[in-house]
This record gives sequence, structure tokens and C-alpha cells, in this order.
Amino acid sequence: MGFEFDRDSEVVDNGASTYSAQLSGGWLIGGGLNGGYQLAVIANALRAASPDRPDPVVMSAHFMAAATEGEATIHTRMLREGGRLATLSAELIQNDTHCVSATATYGDAAAMSTDVATMAGPPDIPPVDACLSAELAPPGLRSAAPMLERLDLRLDPSYAGWARDQPSRSGVIQGWLRFADRREPDTRSLLFAVDALPPVTFDLGLPGWAPTIQLTAHVRAIPEPGWLLVRHATRNVAGGMFEEDCDIWDSSRRLVAQSRQLARLPR
Amino acid sequence: MGFEFDRDSEVVDNGASTYSAQLSGGWLIGGGLNGGYQLAVIANALRAASPDRPDPVVMSAHFMAAATEGEATIHTRMLREGGRLATLSAELIQNDTHCVSATATYGDAAAMSTDVATMAGPPDIPPVDACLSAELAPPGLRSAAPMLERLDLRLDPSYAGWARDQPSRSGVIQGWLRFADRREPDTRSLLFAVDALPPVTFDLGLPGWAPTIQLTAHVRAIPEPGWLLVRHATRNVAGGMFEEDCDIWDSSRRLVAQSRQLARLPR
Repeated sequence: MGFEFDRDSEVVDNGASTYSAQLSGGWLIGGGLNGGYQLAVIANALRAASPDRPDPVVMSAHFMAAATEGEATIHTRMLREGGRLATLSAELIQNDTHCVSATATYGDAAAMSTDVATMAGPPDIPPVDACLSAELAPPGLRSAAPMLERLDLRLDPSYAGWARDQPSRSGVIQGWLRFADRREPDTRSLLFAVDALPPVTFDLGLPGWAPTIQLTAHVRAIPEPGWLLVRHATRNVAGGMFEEDCDIWDSSRRLVAQSRQLARLPR
Repeated sequence: MGFEFDRDSEVVDNGASTYSAQLSGGWLIGGGLNGGYQLAVIANALRAASPDRPDPVVMSAHFMAAATEGEATIHTRMLREGGRLATLSAELIQNDTHCVSATATYGDAAAMSTDVATMAGPPDIPPVDACLSAELAPPGLRSAAPMLERLDLRLDPSYAGWARDQPSRSGVIQGWLRFADRREPDTRSLLFAVDALPPVTFDLGLPGWAPTIQLTAHVRAIPEPGWLLVRHATRNVAGGMFEEDCDIWDSSRRLVAQSRQLARLPR
């Protein structure tokens, strides 16, 4: 039933604040399951554990071991609730390995103040039809990334030269994103969207996947239906690691999510 | 003995991966203990729990309740270690209240790769002697912030107009920072420094302290001795919350730390 993203991120309540999930190989990328997909699964467990405050406001996650296709268990714990926010922790365990440790503050996005005084504006980018579909990616890249089949991703050609060995070396990747089956975005899917594009290191001429060490995402509004505009940029590449910031604007041009991750440089 | 920062952030090993600390009122600001000070205390517990990997690489923290002067307990847990990194969690508990939940990835900063390919450069700022000392802050502000006595903080006058009710409304605060007693910076004190300046909301014409909901800090290098150049900026003010990014450059003009926090707007 329903959309791929929802079907593949379902959790089953096992009682005692513990949930199980069947992680789907459809979200593999570069040999491991996409980190944002794992956050979306964790978010289903946390939403079940926090029914009165169903939306992620901020989630921080440390990725300690690669998760792969198959069963996983998510242990949740309510750390503190009161007022408009609740803070919970979650551990994603697979085959006795602690893969992800996440902590999240949840709230009710529909009840948040509607004031907006944001200074940031969306980046300049060509319209969807003038951007490059991921279907044009090199076959080697696509076969290593079944997740791409689940997305309709249109990359800004200014920062997609890496696909023909001409990276811009700006440390930027940006594009339009939606699910291939037209599932509309919501607060939970934004946790996936902040980690869905190729790593900005592609644009620095460093092919290869970049394992996330830690990622923190802020979800700042319920996104409007339609395309998301996703921009990734890095400013600090050093010591074998790089920081990658992500901004996401919805179809109303509102900045609905921001994230920052620390990742290892590809070898 | 020693410096104020070290003396006030000491922990005592109580066994069973649990530590106690005497939180000092010297780091109060706006009625609560500074969040960065709490991270520095937690970092002492984590360093004791991770002797082979003594430096924070990335720490994420959710602030759930205000901590105040007095005894606190830090429970630590090793989540995963192996290779060059270890990931640990810590809970700071005071009077049976869970104040802070932190997770951190630790490593050995001295053993990290020495490559640097950072694109970011330090911001333009007048020299130290042309900046404004926090000693010039309004008496009402200073009395609410005993922490300022422990710092030598020189604010860029371009973004300090709020002290005379003329905020620049840029959403920026930047300045030179060192400890008043000349304790030199290290990887642990950077966790304090990312949260030491007044909130950027001062520069937006919003006086009042802004409680941090969540903060993630990346520590990217061992800082050189001398002044730190600290820049805070916000781009997204909405829904009663704002994001605040911090960059810290050391005296060699290297970008040694970055952080992002989500905080509540002052009422």
C-alpha cells in the first residue's frame, strides 16, 4: 500500500518503547543504507513514542556502523517532556551492532508560532526542466545507488560537472527533489531529504561515498506540497573530514529545514 | 591552582562511568549556567571515559532544563569504539532533573591528518584594540552575566550597536575571545567558546537571553595559543526559534571549530 518511502520506513511496536523495522535495500547508496532513510525510520519510532508531539524539531544522530538491508530494532527512551517540546533518544541496532545513536526534540509543528523573519533566500537555480536528471548519471554510479530510482532528482548543471569529470570545485551541489512516486514532503521526510543528494565532495573532484559521522537536522516548518529545493555546501575540508551544510526550501520558498553534518572524506 | 575554567569544570570519578562536578555560579549568564560551560564539564567526564581518544571531534547536546550552581552528576556510556574514533553519550543530572543529554565522537586530534583544504576565510574585523570590551556593556547586562568577568571579549563595533539600542539588524555578532586569566584554548575549551558570546538576537533588536534547545559543535583542530576570532550569525528566524551558526578561527587563522544551535527566541 501507499508510497515507497512510507512502506519502507514502517515500524512495528514491540512494547517496552522498542520498535522493529525491515530496512529495505531500495535505499542503498554506495554500499550502505542512506543515513537520511535511517533517520526517517527512527522518526517513525519516535513519533509512535511521542504521540502528542508528533513532529521532529531537531534531530541529532551519530552514525557508528553501517546498517544494511534486513531487520533492525529501535530502542526509544523519553528523556523529558513538558510544555510544547519532548526530547527522546533512539538507538538503531542491527545484528547486535549499535549503528545509530539519535536524540531528538519533538513538538507539534502545526501549533508552532507562524512568525517568519528569515533573512536567507533560496539560491539561484535553473527551473526544474533545465536541470539534469539523475537518470543521466553514469551507469556505474546508478548501479551503486538503487536509492536514486526512488527519487526524482534534478541537479543544477552548474554543480554537476563531476558527472563528466569536470567538477566545479565550488563545494556545492544543489537541485530539485521529490519522491519518484510523488509522495509529498512532510516534517519526517525532510529528515531524509537533508541527506539525499550526492556528497558535495563530488563537486570537489573527490569521487566515492563519504560516510557521515554525525548529522543534526532542524525541521522548521511543515513543507508545502511540491518540489523541494535542496542546497548542500561545504566550507571546511581538513583533517580527513568535511562539514556539509544543507538548506531546504519548499515550493512556497520557505526555508523548511537546515542540517549540518560531519563526514569522512572519501579515500 | 590553575585557571578558572579548569578549576570550575573539574569532575570526580565516582566509578561505574559516573562523575560528579561542582557547577560554579561564575558561569551564570541571564539566570542560567552557560551551555558551553556545561559542555566543557561533560567533556571532562568524557575525556576520562575515553583516555585513548581524548579530544572531542563532534558533540551534540540537547538542553532540556536549566542547570544552576551546585553539584551535578554526569553519567557516561561508551556506545562504540574502534579505529580512530569512539562515540559516547553523557547525561548531566542535577537534583534528579535531566538537564543535558549529549552524544560525542572522540578522537586523538594530534594524530589526525594534517591536510587542510578549507574554503572559508576569517571574517573582516577590526584589530583587538579597536573592538569594544565587554566591560563597556550596560551595568544591567553585566550584573546578569557574571560569566563575562571570566572572559576577555572584544566585540566588533559594527555589530555591537545593540548596547546603545542601535542594533545593526544583520543577525551577526563577532569578536575576539580569550579567557581573562589567559588560559590558552584547547579542543575542550572550544566547546565552551562556541556558546560564549551574546546571542545574535541582540543584534536583531531582541534583548533577553535565548535558551539553547540543541547545539552541535565540530572541533576540527587543536587551536594555537592566543586570541580566538568568534563569529555568530543567524539566517533563519521563524516559529519562535532561530538557528545560530558559529565559526571559530585561531590565531593562525585556521577554522578550528564550527557549531550550529537551535534556540528559542527571547520572549
